[in-house]
Amino acid sequence: MFTFFPTARVRPSPFLEAAMAEGLVAANVYNRMVMPTSYGDPEGEYWRLINGVSQWDVGVERQVQLRGPDAGRLAQILAPRDLSTCKVGQGKYVPLCNHKGTIINDPILLKLADDLFWLSIADSDIWFWAGAIAAERGLDVEVSDPDVHPMALQGPKAEDVVAHVLGDWVRGLKYFWFRETEVQGIPVAIQRSGWSKQGGFEIYLKDSRRGTELWNIFKEAGQPWGIGPGAPATPERVESGLVSVGGDTDDETNPFEVRLGKYVNLDVPDDTVGIQALRRIHAEGVKRHQLGLVMDGAAPMPFGTRAEDILHNGEKVGKMTNSTWSPRMKANIGFALISVSVTAGASVQVMRPGGPVAARLVELPFL
Amino acid sequence: MFTFFPTARVRPSPFLEAAMAEGLVAANVYNRMVMPTSYGDPEGEYWRLINGVSQWDVGVERQVQLRGPDAGRLAQILAPRDLSTCKVGQGKYVPLCNHKGTIINDPILLKLADDLFWLSIADSDIWFWAGAIAAERGLDVEVSDPDVHPMALQGPKAEDVVAHVLGDWVRGLKYFWFRETEVQGIPVAIQRSGWSKQGGFEIYLKDSRRGTELWNIFKEAGQPWGIGPGAPATPERVESGLVSVGGDTDDETNPFEVRLGKYVNLDVPDDTVGIQALRRIHAEGVKRHQLGLVMDGAAPMPFGTRAEDILHNGEKVGKMTNSTWSPRMKANIGFALISVSVTAGASVQVMRPGGPVAARLVELPFL
Repeated sequence: MFTFFPTARVRPSPFLEAAMAEGLVAANVYNRMVMPTSYGDPEGEYWRLINGVSQWDVGVERQVQLRGPDAGRLAQILAPRDLSTCKVGQGKYVPLCNHKGTIINDPILLKLADDLFWLSIADSDIWFWAGAIAAERGLDVEVSDPDVHPMALQGPKAEDVVAHVLGDWVRGLKYFWFRETEVQGIPVAIQRSGWSKQGGFEIYLKDSRRGTELWNIFKEAGQPWGIGPGAPATPERVESGLVSVGGDTDDETNPFEVRLGKYVNLDVPDDTVGIQALRRIHAEGVKRHQLGLVMDGAAPMPFGTRAEDILHNGEKVGKMTNSTWSPRMKANIGFALISVSVTAGASVQVMRPGGPVAARLVELPFL
Repeated sequence: MFTFFPTARVRPSPFLEAAMAEGLVAANVYNRMVMPTSYGDPEGEYWRLINGVSQWDVGVERQVQLRGPDAGRLAQILAPRDLSTCKVGQGKYVPLCNHKGTIINDPILLKLADDLFWLSIADSDIWFWAGAIAAERGLDVEVSDPDVHPMALQGPKAEDVVAHVLGDWVRGLKYFWFRETEVQGIPVAIQRSGWSKQGGFEIYLKDSRRGTELWNIFKEAGQPWGIGPGAPATPERVESGLVSVGGDTDDETNPFEVRLGKYVNLDVPDDTVGIQALRRIHAEGVKRHQLGLVMDGAAPMPFGTRAEDILHNGEKVGKMTNSTWSPRMKANIGFALISVSVTAGASVQVMRPGGPVAARLVELPFL
């Protein structure tokens, strides 16, 4: 739609050169970095993720590194989820909330050592927030943005490719667990994770000078499985019910509203940021919840570029926070953030830019 | 270079529709919003800013609103600049620093009332940081992102256009002072400010439904002065020595290194965030400073997309944080963040992607 140029303010990832060599044509900005979004064949890229193995430059998934004697204490202060049993080598999905209980990011927390953690974040400046809380509480911990850059292999054949490069031990990695190792001398951490529900791994490069080299090792290794470039795919993540914090949430969204309550432990220590608010919200019950929308019509519609109002019996009851064409459902689908008075099965109208569209509400995920 | 699509995560501003009607072709992302950057004629847009009047969608300049009994106290806690004499209707440029004295943003602070302030920010999530500090200190203040969206008129003829619409009283506004008023019933605040050194005003729209209407009022009014669309122009801001926080600064840059020491008051209260560190840094003296680079060669070079090393007598002494062709200087210029052992007048080499380029160091601003 617009032309977009990288600038010194919007950094490239160490994989961008490799991504451009693959024919990258579309990108967006995420955590002030260039985020590849398409290589020119969105439908082919989608089916490669669903049926094969797709290689992603997700260097925009930055790490907020906590290092020092109080690193573990800070991690627990920031995350309203019980980390007391988290082991070195384990990762956990943690919704981060502000003091009001509003979700502001949803990283994977990786425990690398008792005094070293990474928060592998979505799109917001968690460094400043975490650093302010650490300093205000007088903790002995350094908050930084280390030289660490994820690349992902996603899809049902990703495991075969990664095992081919690193050995069959990777097949034994549990979800979100990781191991630090080397790939032909390149330092990495490898984790079973990734922003899709098609399975796969994220490979955290720990030396930004070697991005192209690492990319090409996996590219070559993946040839027998038909590997090709791709990116987090909106149709797949919406079908799979994955939340995009900042896109599907607003300035007042709490984790319980967007199906993330199961990642909140209300019995974490009282000094956890936001926990008092989360306990209160939980006790009072939420006013909104998140459902899926299946819209009428069998042809792809323009995707949404902003929240669109949802009407039920002529009254505004919520908003559609994303929309996409689902190649597997052959329907236009989206997420509703909507009053709890309206439930799955109800018929609603979405006030789209081209006019109202009828839709029915369903439980998430779609697939 | 890449195609870029707005998404629900990357919001449009209320002026984007008007900007697209003007023929917008290039954009970037700033504060998770679409930031228009060019209408297809960068050189014409530059000269319009230098010689005439240029109309900018700068809705990406978000407001961090502080409201409540402790709003003034929080403002002073966040800003290492004396605000004790700041009056209602006055604005002040304030470098914001973290607890280590590292600059993390450089907003204009607007005092709208004793209990109401806006920080009109550059590109980073100051809401989370400010909100965390307010909550950790138990202050009675609400931190929010209000329905406020700046549009700018910049250039030597901007004042005539704004006076034509709003009256000759605007000619009496001092730099960074503002007034809340209406334009044909549209609520706005109007301030003498803007991200150029060519003079002009920022008009803060306080009702997002009326962006196109406000745009067109000034567009029509500006016809006799040859108004046209534009955007913050890298060549002009570099010539003028304006710092881009996040582009020209890194994770360790303090205000004294980048010529912002004059906006820091070391005698602000001891509970100001970062002031202990800033006093220590000031007492010890900085290790780096910011200078201009004038490169050899009379033809425009590709602009920089990342920091480039600077060598002096074969040793790395710093980095070039931006570069651009200057139409007025007819030279490639840039900013150096460089060891204080190297001063204006020295000859250096910039390690550009296409090979080393000779340059000489000069004081900033260039013009």
